[in-house]
Amino acid sequence: MAKEIKVSQQRMEGRILELAKFGRDSIGRGYRVAYTRGDQEARAWYIGLLKKSGLEVSIDAAGNIIGKRKGKNPLLKPIAFGSHIDMVPDGGNYDGCVGSVGALEIIDVLNENNIVTNHPLQVIIFSNEEGSTTGSSAMAGGLSADELEMISQSGQTIAAGIRSIGGRPDSIASATRKKGDMAAFLELHVEQGGILEKENVQIGVVEGIVGIIHWDVTIEGFANHAGTTPMNMRRDALLAAAKFIVALNETVTSYEGRQVGTIGKIAVQPGAYNVVPGKAVLGMELRDLSYDKIVQIFHDIEKKAAAIAASTGTTISFQQKNAVKPALTDKNLQGSITQSAKALGFTYKNMPSGAGHDSQEMALLCPVAMIFVPSVGGISHSPKEFTKTTDMGNGANVLLQTILAIDKE
Amino acid sequence: MAKEIKVSQQRMEGRILELAKFGRDSIGRGYRVAYTRGDQEARAWYIGLLKKSGLEVSIDAAGNIIGKRKGKNPLLKPIAFGSHIDMVPDGGNYDGCVGSVGALEIIDVLNENNIVTNHPLQVIIFSNEEGSTTGSSAMAGGLSADELEMISQSGQTIAAGIRSIGGRPDSIASATRKKGDMAAFLELHVEQGGILEKENVQIGVVEGIVGIIHWDVTIEGFANHAGTTPMNMRRDALLAAAKFIVALNETVTSYEGRQVGTIGKIAVQPGAYNVVPGKAVLGMELRDLSYDKIVQIFHDIEKKAAAIAASTGTTISFQQKNAVKPALTDKNLQGSITQSAKALGFTYKNMPSGAGHDSQEMALLCPVAMIFVPSVGGISHSPKEFTKTTDMGNGANVLLQTILAIDKE
Repeated sequence: MAKEIKVSQQRMEGRILELAKFGRDSIGRGYRVAYTRGDQEARAWYIGLLKKSGLEVSIDAAGNIIGKRKGKNPLLKPIAFGSHIDMVPDGGNYDGCVGSVGALEIIDVLNENNIVTNHPLQVIIFSNEEGSTTGSSAMAGGLSADELEMISQSGQTIAAGIRSIGGRPDSIASATRKKGDMAAFLELHVEQGGILEKENVQIGVVEGIVGIIHWDVTIEGFANHAGTTPMNMRRDALLAAAKFIVALNETVTSYEGRQVGTIGKIAVQPGAYNVVPGKAVLGMELRDLSYDKIVQIFHDIEKKAAAIAASTGTTISFQQKNAVKPALTDKNLQGSITQSAKALGFTYKNMPSGAGHDSQEMALLCPVAMIFVPSVGGISHSPKEFTKTTDMGNGANVLLQTILAIDKE
Repeated sequence: MAKEIKVSQQRMEGRILELAKFGRDSIGRGYRVAYTRGDQEARAWYIGLLKKSGLEVSIDAAGNIIGKRKGKNPLLKPIAFGSHIDMVPDGGNYDGCVGSVGALEIIDVLNENNIVTNHPLQVIIFSNEEGSTTGSSAMAGGLSADELEMISQSGQTIAAGIRSIGGRPDSIASATRKKGDMAAFLELHVEQGGILEKENVQIGVVEGIVGIIHWDVTIEGFANHAGTTPMNMRRDALLAAAKFIVALNETVTSYEGRQVGTIGKIAVQPGAYNVVPGKAVLGMELRDLSYDKIVQIFHDIEKKAAAIAASTGTTISFQQKNAVKPALTDKNLQGSITQSAKALGFTYKNMPSGAGHDSQEMALLCPVAMIFVPSVGGISHSPKEFTKTTDMGNGANVLLQTILAIDKE
């Protein structure tokens, strides 16, 4: 192990701050939304750095930035790593950026130490991760004509957006890679949750990216005058919704494990102080590394909902919206990350990724791994998002050692 | 008791159907909102009938229609009765209309039987009851300049609306009556709740109109990523809101009596499937005939809210919006109504009015009474609002006998 080779934390911090300057809205908030001018400018800046570091840079049909560095053995499959530089509206400066700046850092440290790996290396910066992992989806399975016509956060269609960053939506299929074309894909990322910080752990070894199912939950009661309808004659959809929200929380927390369940949306009708709500619609999601467990929890919740409906004189129905299957990371790569973290003297823990990532799509193509570093306060998708420079550096050093370890296998 | 004198149910039904034709929106729904063309046309129709029945009709400065019928003794104070003919958007054909058509019916029956009461009689049709009891408020206490400038449901200011129905907003104070100017005010009205129908009772003797307090309840937690924030690290404002809604219902129903408590509105931020809600704002109201009881229940709820806030890592605060004091009806008038109902062979029960009415304002000026008749299914403020012709007739007969009884005192 080439322990003496270390990334430059200062350079990483400098680049994080430079990248943060791209993409602001009219009142100064972060708005480096995919396909906007800020995204375009940040991509140009990043491509410039890749080229300066000697990589052969191309943009695939989906707008992904690909930087290639030759290996000693051209017959070996490339080891790929990277992340994304687009952000959610009013987002922060670390989500995606730490992995993107970290990938550049790996290249620069290898250059400075005159190291040429056996495998070719590829830096990949995926397009429109925050929208719907457009770039990695195109790479893993292709985009349908319908998906290309959807309106992105930028206000343009995905197709127009891809075109605006140098992609070729008309030949989108050419972005799709064959399964097994890459030796591995590794992504360094901020945790976006508060577990590592709370437990004072430096490195998260990601076991997989959780599966997610969204449902709309519709509760039908009967809207009536809140003054003239006695308590025992009501069919109050919001009271039923409240009991359901409490029951969901109790059900999810009654299981062992790290599953999460959330009601993030609610709307009631007619929605006045003086009318008993006749209808409530909730937005519900469940996440876990095991899809079977999500389904099992849902069946539990369905039973509780039936009891609540019966006791409140309402009906409760579920409409599934989206379902994303869990994506497990590669056990061998997890082992390499753990070994690297140990060798560097870092504390580490195995954990799921509760958030979605491009790695999820890449798992359809090759073995993947993710390295998490702590998010201060667990805050993410917010201007308050922050990761300490030391932690970024630790993560990049683990990524570097892991790549070197895989390269030797 | 002049038992042989009876109202004509057929005539009442016919007039209810005629009145229902006035005021429709572009897709045919009831829209006889105060100050709109439909309201103006219905008022003209009603005034025509009052005049045809020989009353001296005027419109006061607040736009209230006043129909006067002389009594034998001009020194006696007038006995007043009436209701309103405006409706809520997409409203029904009985709220207000039963009392308005009933008032006309009293006059016509007296005319047909050549009865001249000792007291002068006054039919009063109040303007913009559904907006904010504008007409009766002006009569009881006056309207402020601010109130006159508020935008009504019709889209115009109250002042412009009053002008459009023949009132004089510039001399609004002239509509205000002196306390003690009237012998009594009586209002026949549909129950707007389901108690009379459920209990198979024909006449409701109203004990008073409940007091109402509205609060906004603000719950502050912390918005966070629903995938990356473990269940035990959340400060979920919607979960706290759900526990609060259940606690409110338990608290209100734990008291003996007919108080009601409702959460009719809820909004959460940011409101996405995948974000733990950081903030929830609820619209809460409590109603009871006793103001002290409302306050006592609220203090109970405050205590429970504090415990919920502590257990969920949130803060819960209350902002009082509106408060309307209860208005009790006159015990002697209640007795007269009860006697009349008994003499006519009707079942009856004492009950509060959970809804607000013009009688509430009139209670500031003179003894008031209200007679309720059953609402089918308890439905109100809806096109499905319905009261059977027989029940309307029963109520009008009780009103007639009560007026004759008061007149003899």
